[in-house]
Amino acid sequence: MNSEDILKLLEGVAARKLSPEAALDRLKHLPFEDIGFAKVDHHRALRQGYAEVIFGKGKTPAQVAEIVRAMLRKKGSRHNILITRADKKIFSAVNRISRAASFHPLSGVIGIERSEEMTGKGTILIVSAGTSDIPVAEEALLTARLMGNRVEHLYDVGVAGIHRLLEHRLRLTEARVIICIAGMEGALPSVVGGLVGVPVIAVPTSTGYGASFGGVAALLGMLNSCASNVTVVNIDNGFGAACVASCINRL
Amino acid sequence: MNSEDILKLLEGVAARKLSPEAALDRLKHLPFEDIGFAKVDHHRALRQGYAEVIFGKGKTPAQVAEIVRAMLRKKGSRHNILITRADKKIFSAVNRISRAASFHPLSGVIGIERSEEMTGKGTILIVSAGTSDIPVAEEALLTARLMGNRVEHLYDVGVAGIHRLLEHRLRLTEARVIICIAGMEGALPSVVGGLVGVPVIAVPTSTGYGASFGGVAALLGMLNSCASNVTVVNIDNGFGAACVASCINRL
Amino acid sequence: MNSEDILKLLEGVAARKLSPEAALDRLKHLPFEDIGFAKVDHHRALRQGYAEVIFGKGKTPAQVAEIVRAMLRKKGSRHNILITRADKKIFSAVNRISRAASFHPLSGVIGIERSEEMTGKGTILIVSAGTSDIPVAEEALLTARLMGNRVEHLYDVGVAGIHRLLEHRLRLTEARVIICIAGMEGALPSVVGGLVGVPVIAVPTSTGYGASFGGVAALLGMLNSCASNVTVVNIDNGFGAACVASCINRL
Amino acid sequence: MNSEDILKLLEGVAARKLSPEAALDRLKHLPFEDIGFAKVDHHRALRQGYAEVIFGKGKTPAQVAEIVRAMLRKKGSRHNILITRADKKIFSAVNRISRAASFHPLSGVIGIERSEEMTGKGTILIVSAGTSDIPVAEEALLTARLMGNRVEHLYDVGVAGIHRLLEHRLRLTEARVIICIAGMEGALPSVVGGLVGVPVIAVPTSTGYGASFGGVAALLGMLNSCASNVTVVNIDNGFGAACVASCINRL
Amino acid sequence: MNSEDILKLLEGVAARKLSPEAALDRLKHLPFEDIGFAKVDHHRALRQGYAEVIFGKGKTPAQVAEIVRAMLRKKGSRHNILITRADKKIFSAVNRISRAASFHPLSGVIGIERSEEMTGKGTILIVSAGTSDIPVAEEALLTARLMGNRVEHLYDVGVAGIHRLLEHRLRLTEARVIICIAGMEGALPSVVGGLVGVPVIAVPTSTGYGASFGGVAALLGMLNSCASNVTVVNIDNGFGAACVASCINRL
Amino acid sequence: MNSEDILKLLEGVAARKLSPEAALDRLKHLPFEDIGFAKVDHHRALRQGYAEVIFGKGKTPAQVAEIVRAMLRKKGSRHNILITRADKKIFSAVNRISRAASFHPLSGVIGIERSEEMTGKGTILIVSAGTSDIPVAEEALLTARLMGNRVEHLYDVGVAGIHRLLEHRLRLTEARVIICIAGMEGALPSVVGGLVGVPVIAVPTSTGYGASFGGVAALLGMLNSCASNVTVVNIDNGFGAACVASCINRL
Amino acid sequence: MNSEDILKLLEGVAARKLSPEAALDRLKHLPFEDIGFAKVDHHRALRQGYAEVIFGKGKTPAQVAEIVRAMLRKKGSRHNILITRADKKIFSAVNRISRAASFHPLSGVIGIERSEEMTGKGTILIVSAGTSDIPVAEEALLTARLMGNRVEHLYDVGVAGIHRLLEHRLRLTEARVIICIAGMEGALPSVVGGLVGVPVIAVPTSTGYGASFGGVAALLGMLNSCASNVTVVNIDNGFGAACVASCINRL
Amino acid sequence: MNSEDILKLLEGVAARKLSPEAALDRLKHLPFEDIGFAKVDHHRALRQGYAEVIFGKGKTPAQVAEIVRAMLRKKGSRHNILITRADKKIFSAVNRISRAASFHPLSGVIGIERSEEMTGKGTILIVSAGTSDIPVAEEALLTARLMGNRVEHLYDVGVAGIHRLLEHRLRLTEARVIICIAGMEGALPSVVGGLVGVPVIAVPTSTGYGASFGGVAALLGMLNSCASNVTVVNIDNGFGAACVASCINRL
Repeated sequence: MNSEDILKLLEGVAARKLSPEAALDRLKHLPFEDIGFAKVDHHRALRQGYAEVIFGKGKTPAQVAEIVRAMLRKKGSRHNILITRADKKIFSAVNRISRAASFHPLSGVIGIERSEEMTGKGTILIVSAGTSDIPVAEEALLTARLMGNRVEHLYDVGVAGIHRLLEHRLRLTEARVIICIAGMEGALPSVVGGLVGVPVIAVPTSTGYGASFGGVAALLGMLNSCASNVTVVNIDNGFGAACVASCINRL
Repeated sequence: MNSEDILKLLEGVAARKLSPEAALDRLKHLPFEDIGFAKVDHHRALRQGYAEVIFGKGKTPAQVAEIVRAMLRKKGSRHNILITRADKKIFSAVNRISRAASFHPLSGVIGIERSEEMTGKGTILIVSAGTSDIPVAEEALLTARLMGNRVEHLYDVGVAGIHRLLEHRLRLTEARVIICIAGMEGALPSVVGGLVGVPVIAVPTSTGYGASFGGVAALLGMLNSCASNVTVVNIDNGFGAACVASCINRL
Repeated sequence: MNSEDILKLLEGVAARKLSPEAALDRLKHLPFEDIGFAKVDHHRALRQGYAEVIFGKGKTPAQVAEIVRAMLRKKGSRHNILITRADKKIFSAVNRISRAASFHPLSGVIGIERSEEMTGKGTILIVSAGTSDIPVAEEALLTARLMGNRVEHLYDVGVAGIHRLLEHRLRLTEARVIICIAGMEGALPSVVGGLVGVPVIAVPTSTGYGASFGGVAALLGMLNSCASNVTVVNIDNGFGAACVASCINRL
Repeated sequence: MNSEDILKLLEGVAARKLSPEAALDRLKHLPFEDIGFAKVDHHRALRQGYAEVIFGKGKTPAQVAEIVRAMLRKKGSRHNILITRADKKIFSAVNRISRAASFHPLSGVIGIERSEEMTGKGTILIVSAGTSDIPVAEEALLTARLMGNRVEHLYDVGVAGIHRLLEHRLRLTEARVIICIAGMEGALPSVVGGLVGVPVIAVPTSTGYGASFGGVAALLGMLNSCASNVTVVNIDNGFGAACVASCINRL
Repeated sequence: MNSEDILKLLEGVAARKLSPEAALDRLKHLPFEDIGFAKVDHHRALRQGYAEVIFGKGKTPAQVAEIVRAMLRKKGSRHNILITRADKKIFSAVNRISRAASFHPLSGVIGIERSEEMTGKGTILIVSAGTSDIPVAEEALLTARLMGNRVEHLYDVGVAGIHRLLEHRLRLTEARVIICIAGMEGALPSVVGGLVGVPVIAVPTSTGYGASFGGVAALLGMLNSCASNVTVVNIDNGFGAACVASCINRL
Repeated sequence: MNSEDILKLLEGVAARKLSPEAALDRLKHLPFEDIGFAKVDHHRALRQGYAEVIFGKGKTPAQVAEIVRAMLRKKGSRHNILITRADKKIFSAVNRISRAASFHPLSGVIGIERSEEMTGKGTILIVSAGTSDIPVAEEALLTARLMGNRVEHLYDVGVAGIHRLLEHRLRLTEARVIICIAGMEGALPSVVGGLVGVPVIAVPTSTGYGASFGGVAALLGMLNSCASNVTVVNIDNGFGAACVASCINRL
Repeated sequence: MNSEDILKLLEGVAARKLSPEAALDRLKHLPFEDIGFAKVDHHRALRQGYAEVIFGKGKTPAQVAEIVRAMLRKKGSRHNILITRADKKIFSAVNRISRAASFHPLSGVIGIERSEEMTGKGTILIVSAGTSDIPVAEEALLTARLMGNRVEHLYDVGVAGIHRLLEHRLRLTEARVIICIAGMEGALPSVVGGLVGVPVIAVPTSTGYGASFGGVAALLGMLNSCASNVTVVNIDNGFGAACVASCINRL
Repeated sequence: MNSEDILKLLEGVAARKLSPEAALDRLKHLPFEDIGFAKVDHHRALRQGYAEVIFGKGKTPAQVAEIVRAMLRKKGSRHNILITRADKKIFSAVNRISRAASFHPLSGVIGIERSEEMTGKGTILIVSAGTSDIPVAEEALLTARLMGNRVEHLYDVGVAGIHRLLEHRLRLTEARVIICIAGMEGALPSVVGGLVGVPVIAVPTSTGYGASFGGVAALLGMLNSCASNVTVVNIDNGFGAACVASCINRL
């Protein structure tokens, strides 16, 4: 039941085909989404950042392909399609549906680009500390790009070689939002946060060993950041960081 | 620019092709501390969000008063002054320096408002779950306000009475940034995040008892939020959330 | 806006005082609770289990007294009033409002009994392990009683003296719901659960020291119970256990 | 020694073949189960909820098949047989014993239905948040069904899309007991608990990654639920939740 | 119902005043403790190690004094009386009841010695690492002594000055049971365990700071001891260690 | 350098071939083991409990076989040989060296029995809760047996079916030392400890799932046991429990 | 028994007053410290770094004063005396013994300087992040100084304002050992470690709140430092860091 | 030096009082990246300890081989090349590039020795507790050796057989730096630290099971060491310990 249905119902009342009491009764069971329809749209737009998103892990290649096919069939929609945490087998299945699909094995991202519209106002810069953080960085990068943002990256600028980061401080200050990805001690967002005036989304990674506890050391470091423009998402959640960054970049 | 470039530049000076002043100017964009001066400003602006900030805890009333006096003396500065985690004694000392100071005992915030300029573009909405989350909410609210933002609040809208939140969904959708504060299970940001298309800064609070572990339950809940526009700051960090929100709201 | 208001609105449409379009518009902003009114009632009934409940901790004596006064004024309501986590000062303030208030210092519960109606169908039995678990047991007992249940208790029947528990197995089997409260190793619910066929609500307590970690040892023990009729609430949450038990006992 | 043995002994006393003292002496060593026989039955009934249950994990296919064969041979018993945490190999072995066995690979449950008697009084509703929670939900669903309950389910109603849950609020209010299954932030039980007046058994799942810590985030969220009709079982323990729900539903 | 009652019942059967069937019926509800009486005794003997024990913490001075008075009145009992986790106020109250009471403020132990019988076969040696471990060591020492054991002690022999321990290796090898008390890294039991052939009861203490986590570091160290004659009790549980040691020493 | 060497040195002094000063100098560097030789023996006896022990895990089959060969060659030694945490491949290699070797695949123990001497004075009883605890129980059983103890066992007597344990209380009271093995909530040692007057060595097992955290729940339960004759060893450490029990049983 | 005693014994052998066998027998029981005397000295020198050290916490003012008096009486010793974790009361007591004592209330250190000898070869630089880290920094500074080292400090150079640290990089490179003190995210040692070629001793502090968990976040950050010249000591252990630094600086 | 100084310097160049080259030289000690170049070198020297280091894990054999080829091509460099966390496949690829490469499968280290220069002043002694700690010990040993240090080792000297360690105390006192590697309770560094006057770098290992929590028990033990010359690196970080030790040994 949607707005039109309610209108018809009200017109029925106006036309005396329906008593006010009967109308009340039917309104009482009126499905929520009708009133809240805008919310649903907002919600979808938010979650998918002007892209259709499928979380690949735990789905069979056939299931993913089926969802993609449905998305491609939807009329009027030209949104990019993004599949995260996918693998080769999923890609084979998807590729049979759409030749436009491209697979990024490092991050497990599959993208089907249908629109090149830039909906983000500025540049999102992805900064990462070590080479082992790159898969998460790439997930963030591809997500942000398919969601309609200009994205740049700055890799391998860990804090123990601070000069490498400082060399690029101009690029840091040119970004509108920064995603900062680091494992181990997770110190990079504090340093980056101190160098810029824009929001920094920190992503702890599960790289490291021993007392890194699968990313907990980095996570705690980031939550305790002494730079006050830093917020944090879950360990290895490059996708989530890109969603938030994209959502900020559209403001 | 490397050593050779600098040498050329110096040879230009020696050859009088370049004035020492012009050379200095170009050099200023080289050495860190020179160029970095603007960054210092940026940095300061960021940390203080167009407000001067003093972390009161661990400082004596005399020390805080002294810092306030220095800030008030600074010529040309009309920034608001914000003292967080303060108490009555600190307020007495500060009040002797500035009659304009006002104390908010619930959150321990002291504010000295000197400017009413609104630098934030939209409204920051503070949403909190329970009455015991209000001190943290108030810290966020006052911080955001003194940093030049229009701020509204929506208190006591916990998820176990979801209708109270839904009644206000219009106000939710009107905000440009949302700060969402909750203790216990920390579920509020997920629900709020699903209802809006703007960034949600989640603040776990240390309220609760037993297995809330001083805010850890709420923190983990927020980090694992199934809404993709949610990022997280440290437990009870209302100040930090307001800094980030303010920084986003100025974009 | 409630059902009557909607009815009026619909009558307005029927009477052609309001166009269907205008009615739709007003319906779209219709406050949620109107549709969901039953839910609100359910919710309230649930949370308060036919009792009005105030969480005393973090409220001033004056605030609590004010809430009590408002509850007593509500016409037609004869619900019992329950104040948890209260202290002497709160009691003094409440006692001035209602001479019927009684204070239980061990558990910090204040009760104002206005109705003796038994809404629970059977008996709720509170079983606890050690003397230091009694405050939590008492909170559960008084909550369950004020919510309209027959309540019995069996204290000091820890598992290291299993014969003390077994002596009372008849009473165990006569209960309709059992609340089982234990600190230290939290083993009591497993043994009790194995002796009865009814649901056992386990409450870990924060008693103990060292590796009891403020109730975590008991909590984990209960979550891993090998008896399959055991569920668990938060550490020291005697109130919550009584709410659930009461809610089961009314089925 | 059982009731008959005791009777013989007492008859011996009555017949003066045995002195009261000698009888006392023999009674003192009387095995517990004779006296406690009713308890054993209760216990069994409870654990198996009118179903025979085998925990498949850690047993060889041959062992499981042997136990099933013994169950099927027991005279007079028409209980359903439930094997949890099983796999294909176990199913092959069991299927050779009983063609009535059916295997549910998602949850690893094998069921042999021999009775369709409904011993539960109302409906148990299984509500789950995400698609990855479905295996645990299915374990709960099949367990509850084989234990003689009407069971319904409501899948994929996570809190970040609250409208999907609210659409189904009628079904929520029609249930007598609700099992609520969620991973990640584990917020669903709080929202569901706030919408109904019946007991909600919360099951955290180990889905998620990073700071979900294998279900700990969800577990803590549920233990700290602000809805007071929520109790919690162990992570991924769909079977246990169904046992408790079934036990409540027979009250 | 006790042995005499059962005897009477059996005599009733013998006298044909009671049919065997009626007797069976009454026996079926026979309280457990009658049959299990020996167990109660064993249990008590065990818990109190031939001493009467009162856990002082959480009891009022009046309550403790009352229990002591009852113990002193019991005829025929000459057991020592031990009150652990007591304070000055409790001692004042107890001292009024019994002039024989002595208070050890370091450990909070009150002892009333009524018997000097040595029931332990050998010597229990208490070894502790640092001066801050002495309160726990003293609790163990006084407990073991009042339970009828010869007790010796060796204090301040931490592993970072291994020569101090080795000087005393003769005394180590002369003990029948060793209680080994240490905070910080908890390494002492491993070294002591490697030097002797008797059981070593390790007690972690909550001394230390930072990453000692209130005794957790010591506890984990002891649980992972590479000496295979080491077992562990709870943090700061000097009393428990002495109970076990005493129980071994009576074998 | 051993006793004979020191004697020679002293004879050299007596014979004036060596000055006292020179002798002092050489004595100062005298290796520790000469003085401490008895300790070495004690140590070895302790660790191996009159059995030679090899920890199989992390060693190649060839390495284990080599060590076994060396042990078998040692003259005068008739100690049993025990290999823990072994597998089939190790057994094949060992079996080629000694046909007397027997392999117990459940626990991964290989035993070579060369002596049937009983050095323990009483019976060690192994009590375990669930079927999944049996591998650890078997490791304890075989270790204790090869170390020269009479060993009995009582399996599958979990606390949720307390009657099964109580049926066997005579066997419990006949043991001189009890090893009590349990996973999940780890409650068994408390119940057993309350039924007997002898030491109970508790072994937590890593069985269970979810909030059992690989045995941590059981470990904490056991450390917080309310029975005072319970001590604890590491998770899954059946071998260690048997060492301690054996060491107690020889007292 | 000391070297002289052994010499006498050997002279007795040389003089044939004692048989070699009898001498051997007495030597066998020779106390360890005689042989190991050098170790004792080394040990003491190490622990106290050419200073006498008293850990004040947990000692009464009288006890501390007594130890100081004994130290001052020791002939020939001119070592500095250091009392850590002291307070005003301890200082009053010590000051009565030695007018040379000086008290540093921030860090709770009392120093009695008797020697100005510099035994360290280079400069130890203390670098700290925030103002709340200064008490720990001061403990390190005073300890290092009283142990005979040139010490400099660089306070308030947190990583979120990296330019403040970089301004002082010359001083960083001039140090022989660096002690780096930080709370919150503990990132400073990584940055400092990357700027220098000397060892960096990292000290996490317990400053911060929420997810800093009393210094755990900083501790984990430091243990996972990506700079390979960083080692870590316990939380708040400024004394320990200074001991190690001093020990390195004397190499 | 500030802007004015630079201006003066530039005016000096303009006035031909200073050659461009001399000005460049002075400027080199100003701007970060110019001056910092030496730091980069220092940094590199530090990280690699006069060796080129590649972290093998997470790189393909081809990638590692490519990096090695580049290193070998660098003119003038005769540094040793060290590849850590490598495997057989990486070795095959590297060996094709350089026949001088040698592989140590226990520790996964590949070394290419090009220089035998000893840059360390004394001996680094590697002490380890159990046989399962040897892989980490070997990583430390090979790293230290390739970084130009004399390295010795002392394996299998766990604290439960303290005599084995004490036998070698001469070797302990001859080292300039000690790396002490232990799993389980991590007690070895405390004992070793107490026996020597030089810095001890403690490395916890992840060996052990159950409550060793992958090295956490050992890590906590070492952080709480009662010997004050002990610092700690991450779990299993033999490489890092060798870097620090090497860095100290060059002082």
